[in-house]
Parts: sequence; C-alpha cells; structure tokens
Amino acid sequence: MSEHVRYLETATGFLMVLRQGDDVLARLEELMLAEDIPSASITGFGFAGQARFGFFDFGRGDYDPREFKDLEITGLTGTLAWKDGEPSIHAHASGGDRMFNVVGGHVLGLTVGRGSFEITIFVHPHRLQRKVEPATGAKVLQLGHD
Amino acid sequence: MSEHVRYLETATGFLMVLRQGDDVLARLEELMLAEDIPSASITGFGFAGQARFGFFDFGRGDYDPREFKDLEITGLTGTLAWKDGEPSIHAHASGGDRMFNVVGGHVLGLTVGRGSFEITIFVHPHRLQRKVEPATGAKVLQLGHD
Amino acid sequence: MSEHVRYLETATGFLMVLRQGDDVLARLEELMLAEDIPSASITGFGFAGQARFGFFDFGRGDYDPREFKDLEITGLTGTLAWKDGEPSIHAHASGGDRMFNVVGGHVLGLTVGRGSFEITIFVHPHRLQRKVEPATGAKVLQLGHD
Repeated sequence: MSEHVRYLETATGFLMVLRQGDDVLARLEELMLAEDIPSASITGFGFAGQARFGFFDFGRGDYDPREFKDLEITGLTGTLAWKDGEPSIHAHASGGDRMFNVVGGHVLGLTVGRGSFEITIFVHPHRLQRKVEPATGAKVLQLGHD
Repeated sequence: MSEHVRYLETATGFLMVLRQGDDVLARLEELMLAEDIPSASITGFGFAGQARFGFFDFGRGDYDPREFKDLEITGLTGTLAWKDGEPSIHAHASGGDRMFNVVGGHVLGLTVGRGSFEITIFVHPHRLQRKVEPATGAKVLQLGHD
Repeated sequence: MSEHVRYLETATGFLMVLRQGDDVLARLEELMLAEDIPSASITGFGFAGQARFGFFDFGRGDYDPREFKDLEITGLTGTLAWKDGEPSIHAHASGGDRMFNVVGGHVLGLTVGRGSFEITIFVHPHRLQRKVEPATGAKVLQLGHD
C-alpha cells in the first residue's frame, strides 16, 4: 500500500519505521528474510492500534491471549531467530492506555495505530535457532550454532 | 551547577549518567548538538522526580498530559533525530511507583529525582529528520536521508 | 546443573540465554568476571518465577522490597559496572502478571521461571565504577575512569 521505505541499515543493524496498519511481527519477518538476518536483538516503541498479549498456561501448553486497543507501547524487547527454516520472533512488550495504566506480556500480535512504530535491530553474526525443550515445554533460543 | 561529566563515548555511541534535577530531554538535546549526532536509538532507566506522560488525542491534535512524581523508570526507549535544524526526540517510558504499579506513555518531560538516570545512546550514521505526515497528523521519523 | 551454554559473543558484546531456576543477577556477575567486562548496558526479557523489586526509601536509606511471582518480564534495562573490585549491577524491570497488569521497579532479585530469559549485553571499553555519592546517598555510575 505504502511507498514508504520501512528500514535503513545502520552501524549495528537496522532501524525500522512502521506506520498505521503495519503488522509489526510480519514486517520483522519480512526484514529477516529480505536481509538474511542470522539473529538479532530488538528494542522498539510506538503507538499500537491493536496489541495481543499472552501469558503462558503450562497446563494447557499455550498462551492465554488478551487483546488491547490503543496503547502507547512503552517498550518492545525481543530477539529474532529461526525455527525450521522460518523466522521465529520472540518479543515482550508493555504499553500505557489513555489513563497511563500499563499492561503487557508476551507479544502474540501488534498492529501500528494512528501514528508510527520505531524498532532498532541489533544484528548478531550467528544463525540461531529456537527449539522446544522437553524439560519445560518452552520454545528456547539455542546458542549452539552452525 | 554540577561539575560532573555527563557522558562518555563508547564503541556504539555514548553512555550518559544524569543526576538529581537534570532535565532528561534537555540533556539529550545538548548531547546531540555538542556531538553532532546524526540520529540515534536510546534506552534508559533511573529515578524520576517528575515524569510528564502524554497520550495523543487525535481529535484535539495534541497530547493529553499527566504528571507523576517519584517513579522508578523501568524503561525509556526512544530515538534522536532532527526537525527544522533542531534536535527532535521521540521517547516513551514506563515507571513504577512505591506500590510497584507501573504507569507510562509518550514522554513529554522527565526530571531526575534523588538518585541518577542512565541512558545508552546507539548512534546511527544517517542524519534523519522528523516530519508531520498529513495522512495521520503524526510526527514521523523519515528514513529517506541526505 | 545444566550443561547448556549460557552466552555467546556477538559483534557488540554478548547474548545470554538463561533457563528455569537461573538467578539473573548472579549469572550476569559470572559473565562479567569470566569475560572481564569493563562496563556494559543491558536489555532483557523473559519469564520470571520470582521477581523482587525495590523502591528506595531515602528516609531509611534502603529499598522497600516486594516479591512477585510468575511475571512475563516485559523489559529489563540496566548497566554493568564495578565497585570495590566486585561486579556491580544496576537494573530496573517491569513485568505483566496473568491478568496483564504490569508491576516493576529497581531489581533486587530475579529468578527465571518455567521458560527462559534472554539478555543482550552491549560492552563498553571503559572500566567504570559505582560510588555512593554523599549529596543524595545514592550509588551512582561514575564516568571518570582509569
């Protein structure tokens, strides 16, 4: 839709600016594929029209989701890696509503609202994989690499 | 007032330490001008005596402000750029009060309280501008550069 | 206990992955000693089984502590330095509970819960010290260095 450039290469990785309607996780996956990012750490902030957070229920083995609207995301922190040849993003975020109360958790989905969203990507040289570990049932970033 | 050195150059940019009474946004603007920083991403934390957060009201075209006192700022995330030749800082933050409840939003103002405030600045090589975009009325970081 | 590799060297420092039962501050201290890190800035996120936050009471000269269980830590921000020859870590964090309410403050202790915890360490070249400053009674990162 938009003719805007979405990211710029920097000394330590990339700087990404997203706009209203952009799906944050999908755009990060596109970046990983387009730039063949082996792994990375990210920080970000901006305005989210929709934020879907999860809290892991180990009994059920899945995230209990909850959707929030119109949050000033005060901090997005995450890592970019790979799983079965596909981008695998793990990120947590928190954000304040119009009363400045902050909610947050594991990021299941995040869509940019009326405004923008800025993400800084610090690229690491190793191609890292995520793997479900039987001990906890959690998907964990593996530091052993090719 | 203070004879303290406020920042240090690092491998990726600068490390800044502010003290009681320092105005965080003003000190960052001073740094940008003194070191001619083209653009940067920042993360920070510390103790704020006053924090003024905003939530954007698109009807009014301005931020609804609210002031908080004495917050352990748990995360400041932002970017440094330029607008009309002047430093243009965009940052969001959250912080916990003495009951550990966290509030946050867009940073309109932040003054260091009794304690300190530490900020890590990751400098990018491109001189970036912020511009109000007619589509949303929001001031957005432009990735096209000179 | 665990045979897992806990960290990896990157272009800007280290990437650390901790697992259930790991003491976050103790593991960071081990890293500082093992790799002789002069100073560093960190960001992190993950699942905490226990989080002990503090809010400083200047009357008492100590932190009022409070313990929380099972938080999706949405952001850990801190710096690594030295004091009297020992690692000195200063970090703040916030995290969401199963209702997605976010609490946070100064980190007194953090233990990884069922899941993992990922920390990005940006190493700085100067060996920095923390020192209690008489003016405020606060322990402050000193930018003057050897």
